[in-house]
Amino acid sequence: MANAFDEFKVHSVAEFFKKNRQMLGFSGRVRSLTTVVHEYVTNSLDAAEEAGILPDISVEIKEFPNEHYVVKAEDNCTGIPQKHVGKALGMMLAGTKFHRYMQQRGQQGIGASGCTMFSQITTGKPVHVKSGTGNGKVFECDLFIDLKTNQPKITNFVEMPGDFKGLSIQAEFAEVKYDKSTHSVFEYLKLTAIANPHAQITLIEPTGEKTVFPRSTNQIPKRPSEILPHPLGITTNDLIEKAHHSVSRKVGSFLTTEFSRVSNDKIKEIDGIVNEGKAPDNPEYVNFEKKPSELKWPEAERIILAFQKVKWIAPSTDSITPIGKEQVEKSLRNILNPEFVSVTERKPKVFRGGVPFMVEAAVAYGGQAGTKTANGIGGDIIRFANRAPLLFDGGGCATTEAVKTIDWKRYDIKDFENEPLTVFINFVSVYVPYTGAGKQAISLEDEIIQEIRYAVMEVARDLERYVHGKFRAHERANKIKAIMRYVKQLSADLPDLAGMGKPDQLEAKLVKLIETKYMQGELEGDEEEGDENGEVKNGKPEGKDDAEEEEQ
Amino acid sequence: MANAFDEFKVHSVAEFFKKNRQMLGFSGRVRSLTTVVHEYVTNSLDAAEEAGILPDISVEIKEFPNEHYVVKAEDNCTGIPQKHVGKALGMMLAGTKFHRYMQQRGQQGIGASGCTMFSQITTGKPVHVKSGTGNGKVFECDLFIDLKTNQPKITNFVEMPGDFKGLSIQAEFAEVKYDKSTHSVFEYLKLTAIANPHAQITLIEPTGEKTVFPRSTNQIPKRPSEILPHPLGITTNDLIEKAHHSVSRKVGSFLTTEFSRVSNDKIKEIDGIVNEGKAPDNPEYVNFEKKPSELKWPEAERIILAFQKVKWIAPSTDSITPIGKEQVEKSLRNILNPEFVSVTERKPKVFRGGVPFMVEAAVAYGGQAGTKTANGIGGDIIRFANRAPLLFDGGGCATTEAVKTIDWKRYDIKDFENEPLTVFINFVSVYVPYTGAGKQAISLEDEIIQEIRYAVMEVARDLERYVHGKFRAHERANKIKAIMRYVKQLSADLPDLAGMGKPDQLEAKLVKLIETKYMQGELEGDEEEGDENGEVKNGKPEGKDDAEEEEQ
Repeated sequence: MANAFDEFKVHSVAEFFKKNRQMLGFSGRVRSLTTVVHEYVTNSLDAAEEAGILPDISVEIKEFPNEHYVVKAEDNCTGIPQKHVGKALGMMLAGTKFHRYMQQRGQQGIGASGCTMFSQITTGKPVHVKSGTGNGKVFECDLFIDLKTNQPKITNFVEMPGDFKGLSIQAEFAEVKYDKSTHSVFEYLKLTAIANPHAQITLIEPTGEKTVFPRSTNQIPKRPSEILPHPLGITTNDLIEKAHHSVSRKVGSFLTTEFSRVSNDKIKEIDGIVNEGKAPDNPEYVNFEKKPSELKWPEAERIILAFQKVKWIAPSTDSITPIGKEQVEKSLRNILNPEFVSVTERKPKVFRGGVPFMVEAAVAYGGQAGTKTANGIGGDIIRFANRAPLLFDGGGCATTEAVKTIDWKRYDIKDFENEPLTVFINFVSVYVPYTGAGKQAISLEDEIIQEIRYAVMEVARDLERYVHGKFRAHERANKIKAIMRYVKQLSADLPDLAGMGKPDQLEAKLVKLIETKYMQGELEGDEEEGDENGEVKNGKPEGKDDAEEEEQ
Repeated sequence: MANAFDEFKVHSVAEFFKKNRQMLGFSGRVRSLTTVVHEYVTNSLDAAEEAGILPDISVEIKEFPNEHYVVKAEDNCTGIPQKHVGKALGMMLAGTKFHRYMQQRGQQGIGASGCTMFSQITTGKPVHVKSGTGNGKVFECDLFIDLKTNQPKITNFVEMPGDFKGLSIQAEFAEVKYDKSTHSVFEYLKLTAIANPHAQITLIEPTGEKTVFPRSTNQIPKRPSEILPHPLGITTNDLIEKAHHSVSRKVGSFLTTEFSRVSNDKIKEIDGIVNEGKAPDNPEYVNFEKKPSELKWPEAERIILAFQKVKWIAPSTDSITPIGKEQVEKSLRNILNPEFVSVTERKPKVFRGGVPFMVEAAVAYGGQAGTKTANGIGGDIIRFANRAPLLFDGGGCATTEAVKTIDWKRYDIKDFENEPLTVFINFVSVYVPYTGAGKQAISLEDEIIQEIRYAVMEVARDLERYVHGKFRAHERANKIKAIMRYVKQLSADLPDLAGMGKPDQLEAKLVKLIETKYMQGELEGDEEEGDENGEVKNGKPEGKDDAEEEEQ
């Protein structure tokens, strides 16, 4: 064992992810290339949103011998200041997003640096960067990571005057492959376009073919705002850490300034609960007048317990921006050309006590909805988190779990695996609990799964009415067809049978009789089925969750 | 955007995993507790194996108010030297395992430190450690991680004389829960015992109930040995990094000493391929006589390409130790008491060109095999990597993918979800490509999935014979029962019908006639079905892969 400990070493996070690159999404040739594009494009979309810019993003992929590919991703956003470029693209766990409580696509400070690492371990080449922040100067440089230390190295730095505003990254990769399969760059960008109708995205494929996913709205999404954490969403450890770094003079004012929804009245209420029946000399007494830096763990724990007993206003949800029902419908109609669409945008909820989130869900039926299967067409789930497509690891994702546990037969969908059906889910939150650093699946947390189920069940009810109506219409059409078959014969035979002369246009009259009288009665019975015209329904009135039955 | 970059920060890997604790397996109360036990127990088993000790491991869990739990994990192994204890348990990405090319349960240097982090963020308390390395001295200390810097802090250190040899860790956790569900500590230890029959494992539950999973063999598993990487399993980047750190004097000797299977003859062959038709002044000429530190990327890439063109002896598989067929059978019989078991131990294979691995698979049928479902009993998969149970994230695991893509109907298993069937899989390798830092699923790499499929199909064929035989036996028994029903009547009526006196023991004679004559004929037809006695079959002869049909 002494032997084993002779080998004791400390490793950098870059070495960790170099060895376990599959954890960042670098496994499989096609997936690896999609991961690269995913990281660059989500960064561009985040930058655009924060700066209030309509993003113009282009991705160009070129193929070279020995299965080497060069990816060039360029945007029209705000660039990266020279001071930060090394760490932003050449150091893992560095960035602007990790610590902010705000809806963003990226949140880890790993993605783009992970691409730099992947480029250098497969081709030995640095990444080439060009950045213009709009101050009349543009710089370019080459950049790599010292994997042993997780430190950026910049070479060939040049600065020049120029109008280019935005960021352009060019990197070479091996062990990747370009194709147009389900998990390809093409599919990824198509889904990105669905969820980001304000973005113009251009793809130039290795063949030279150029595809533009055009902007379908000029409305810039609301700038995401940073919010203070809600008392119900923090742990004792968070409270201690914040307290010990606080500049507030008292525990009380620390709580009101660094958390949302904490008023002076609430402080009194919490003080009352924590110190109930305790004299100030009781060792369990918590003094809300003392310095936050003096707060001890057991005291913080008692405050956290008191938080659970107080009635709170829900967290502010200003920070959460969905795509919007109209946009989701428009996107799904454009791309899938379905017979029927229904979209719902649920009210914001919270998970883990205080992290705000919301779910948008839609269902599209018929047309190009669904996915190709061995047997034909089957149900498909398209998943997004903060508008970024989730293409991989669907098996362990809260979205899939929610859809899978719905009893689709209740909604006239006999077999989800065999219907032309696409379920769309967008999970929006200031913090997405991804299962891995590759950010492809949402952790199976009950509150999240439940809310996604409610959302999907809501649109499934609309779908049921449509499918049921479609089935009835089909049956009725068959019945009428059967009757009509006898009309001609009847109109010829009737005069003889009745022993009278042949009246004018007997056949036409009979047809009209059937069409008006007979079908009217049938139709009346169908009235309440309604909504066969494929219009988007606005879903159920809010607050109906309690009435929603549980399927088992 | 200038605003965004004002917030640019660098974070430690400990902060990353604190924020994304679900990536380490700390999500859900039951799972979090299982993760803690998993990390401590796998470390103990690794330590025992490396030191050649028969492990004695005890896990004690106590419950305290406010859902606080204390976990005490103790082993009889080699302890941790004082010098290393801080980093081993209080610093992420530090340890003896990360960089070694060797079969181990742990491989990241995160697990135990992750538990320290989880203890301190849920209870604010340090972890208490007691360690004896067998030198007559024992030390104890408290230990936590400075999360901002990922540095260990040790307090209350005391050393005393003592005979204790091993490691004892005691830690308090909140946001966890003890129960006995499918993913619980109890289940985890039960599965650990199945795959580690040389270990004695004791669990003391919060109720005080004590369960011993006894050692079922005194044979210490072969000590895992570190191997040199195989030329087919390395990337250009690996080659460059190794070359630049090498103490060899020439590129040629560097290759023969730092990789396995590289002889001087092979160097000549590679030299021939790389430099074919190139004069030494050609810029593409690679000089195998120069210092390894002078090797450039394009040269390394040409060497790697040449590696692919040379015929190599397969990687050494000495480093790979399976559980063994007899042990797997014994374990499955003990725990599931099945009607039928079949086990196979496949020959070692390689993935990613040069990483050796092997698959053990078994199938158990009837008895307690299978898992409880809403409809009764359904097929179950128990998964292991290097003998450590994988309880979570089965959806995205190569093992599950392999089992799911088998057409079970071909093996007379009409519906995998509705049979009393347990499939056992142990994946053994010097490197397990886990999908996440929580080490619960094996990455979906084609070579791995395919080999697991072959292994499972092999035992499935044995199962088919058993199930088919059982079905035939059942049919035959019914037929005989029907005939026997008439024997009594016949033996009474036959004398009358024949017009003769009642012979002695006519009924017994008829029964004997049916049993011998009639059934014999039936049985002969069944002979080749054989193997109804539930004996373990030794699987197919090796090298039959080519003949194995692909199911689609």
